[in-house]
Amino acid sequence: MKFSSKILKCELSPIRKFAPYAAAARARGIAIYPLNIGQPDIATPNEYFDAVKNFSTPVLGYAPSDGVPEYLDAVHGYYEKLGQPVDRGGVLATEGGSEALSIALECILDEGDELLVPEPFYTNYATFAALTGAEIRPIPTTPEEGFRYAERERIEPLINERTRAILITNPGNPTGSVLTRAEMRVIADIAVERGLFVISDEVYREFTYGGEAMASMLEFEHAHDNVVVIDSVSKRFSACGARVGALISRNSGLMKQALKICQARLCAATLDQVGAAALYSVGPEYFAAVREEYQRRRDTAYAGLMRIPGVVCRRPEGAFYLMAKLPIDNTDTFQQWMLEEFSDRGETVMLTPGEGFYATPGKGVNEARIAYVLEQDRLERAMELLALGIEAYNKR
Amino acid sequence: MKFSSKILKCELSPIRKFAPYAAAARARGIAIYPLNIGQPDIATPNEYFDAVKNFSTPVLGYAPSDGVPEYLDAVHGYYEKLGQPVDRGGVLATEGGSEALSIALECILDEGDELLVPEPFYTNYATFAALTGAEIRPIPTTPEEGFRYAERERIEPLINERTRAILITNPGNPTGSVLTRAEMRVIADIAVERGLFVISDEVYREFTYGGEAMASMLEFEHAHDNVVVIDSVSKRFSACGARVGALISRNSGLMKQALKICQARLCAATLDQVGAAALYSVGPEYFAAVREEYQRRRDTAYAGLMRIPGVVCRRPEGAFYLMAKLPIDNTDTFQQWMLEEFSDRGETVMLTPGEGFYATPGKGVNEARIAYVLEQDRLERAMELLALGIEAYNKR
Repeated sequence: MKFSSKILKCELSPIRKFAPYAAAARARGIAIYPLNIGQPDIATPNEYFDAVKNFSTPVLGYAPSDGVPEYLDAVHGYYEKLGQPVDRGGVLATEGGSEALSIALECILDEGDELLVPEPFYTNYATFAALTGAEIRPIPTTPEEGFRYAERERIEPLINERTRAILITNPGNPTGSVLTRAEMRVIADIAVERGLFVISDEVYREFTYGGEAMASMLEFEHAHDNVVVIDSVSKRFSACGARVGALISRNSGLMKQALKICQARLCAATLDQVGAAALYSVGPEYFAAVREEYQRRRDTAYAGLMRIPGVVCRRPEGAFYLMAKLPIDNTDTFQQWMLEEFSDRGETVMLTPGEGFYATPGKGVNEARIAYVLEQDRLERAMELLALGIEAYNKR
Repeated sequence: MKFSSKILKCELSPIRKFAPYAAAARARGIAIYPLNIGQPDIATPNEYFDAVKNFSTPVLGYAPSDGVPEYLDAVHGYYEKLGQPVDRGGVLATEGGSEALSIALECILDEGDELLVPEPFYTNYATFAALTGAEIRPIPTTPEEGFRYAERERIEPLINERTRAILITNPGNPTGSVLTRAEMRVIADIAVERGLFVISDEVYREFTYGGEAMASMLEFEHAHDNVVVIDSVSKRFSACGARVGALISRNSGLMKQALKICQARLCAATLDQVGAAALYSVGPEYFAAVREEYQRRRDTAYAGLMRIPGVVCRRPEGAFYLMAKLPIDNTDTFQQWMLEEFSDRGETVMLTPGEGFYATPGKGVNEARIAYVLEQDRLERAMELLALGIEAYNKR
């Protein structure tokens, strides 16, 4: 029996590729500093657990397919505060940002269609796109330019009659780069002129370190029919395991199509939506504190990288990732060596090789994503280990 | 901007079509007996809520993509007790049976492929199939034959070079019919001979009223590579809102493909998996009590139907549904009339018109699905209202 050509085009997560080598290293007594995972270590606000504990019902029934009212109210309230109110029906509760994205792609993409995505990009986009039968056409960027891509001359030549949408992550994963309002307008204008959807994954919106609040693609009125926003409580409230997200658009036609899928899968988990609704009641001081913490770590990780001769990296403005070009031949080989051969005082470090974030073969081979989700002092040591590792690796 | 041809082939849930008419009726003070929804009214075991309340962690992190260990252990344990142990890796935790099914179809079906499904079938299968680009080829059944379909002469002529799988629901939704072991063997044999997958949706397994435990498609050793089982805690433990299910197969190649999708969507909700694991600790007395309750209702609903002249229905052996041919011209028209024109002592009844369960145009127009998820006395009254309604409708 054969499998679908779509699933055969997909790959197992490259982020998990080194797990067995890490396990072996730990078995040898080596302590590993994980800079490879995007799992925040910030505590989940008690509001989530309290709401879940206080929820009581004799029968845990299906939630409405479009979402639990309290959760929808909370998301609508959040966007009102953001200055971007969305009409009822413009928000659908989803099983994390992941489901919101896959629903959006299913509604838009046919076999053979093309989806523009700046590379490097979040690796799982490749799977969600492949399952629709569409192709990802990467918008090229470079570490030297800080992975910026929002330029007409870079994007327009890639658009053809099969192009349906531009998928962006802003703030960026893995790059950490944040689009300026002017750059966002370029994307919005191109989308309107060429009749494309802009799918804007803004799950890291609250994590920007430039001082001012980040703009949302929802802000461009002329592009209201083009813009689809992917949102989630996972990173915003450090609640990845809740699997509660949202699909947001002012294109009522698109939302009507999306509702078909939401009804077919019945609903997102009832209890988690109740907890997620409560998360939105935390005050601005929560975001301020978390932002400050991540900004300190960003500065620490960036300073640590800059101390390594030959590293190419522009200081990122958002999310909790850095993408850097390292002074080594191949990050895959380097990571394996770091786990099998290297250790300093019984410690080593893990990062994510860059190649997996690119659709273009051969790109990113000497790049790496660093997730700065460790406390200050451990992060300092992790960056020191990376520096020592690179030096030893190149001398071997 | 256009939408994908796949999503345009999908429809909004026909089960929800009459919601606005029902709301209007309620606004006029009419009480409605709902026989239209598959939402059990049996209490969710406290084990779920206790486990959730006792769960404590500073950071609600991602669960493993294949599932929370306690939940996987619970499902493995359940299948061992069933006499069908499955190796590690043969069970993947999913967001309800819905996600398990859509993952299975994504792994198997390409654009233009064909999926055999006995009709009438669970309406959402159509959406999940359409999103893969494949076509459903219905296996015809009739109310007169009790919707039985597991016969070579009925199935084999429908198989061609594009046929990839047979999707069955056993016990059946909407029919309530349960395959005999001999019938299941026919399906297994055909699948093995023709190199097809058998996707067996067995979420109603515990609800059979023939006395003996239902067989699972997992029992046929020669078909181990062909069989994929869809499972869920939703109906089994009256926990539909937990959205926790499982994809189960001994075909390790298929499970490896499925894991790609599980990794891409990161994980199913952590807390709900913890609760679901606890649900599996309830004893056999729980199932016995629930089974007895549903059997009483099945008998009540069936007896009520049999009192209506001209109704065609074989007594169903499982799940909590009846599918019947009614002595009326069109169930859609009838349902709307029941909500807009009819009432007896300020009460009326809702059922689900049959047409939506068929892929073949025009089939099921005078059929209806009745979900017997009401307590005994209310169910009695609901069936009485149905009888009175049919009589008045045909006299109008």
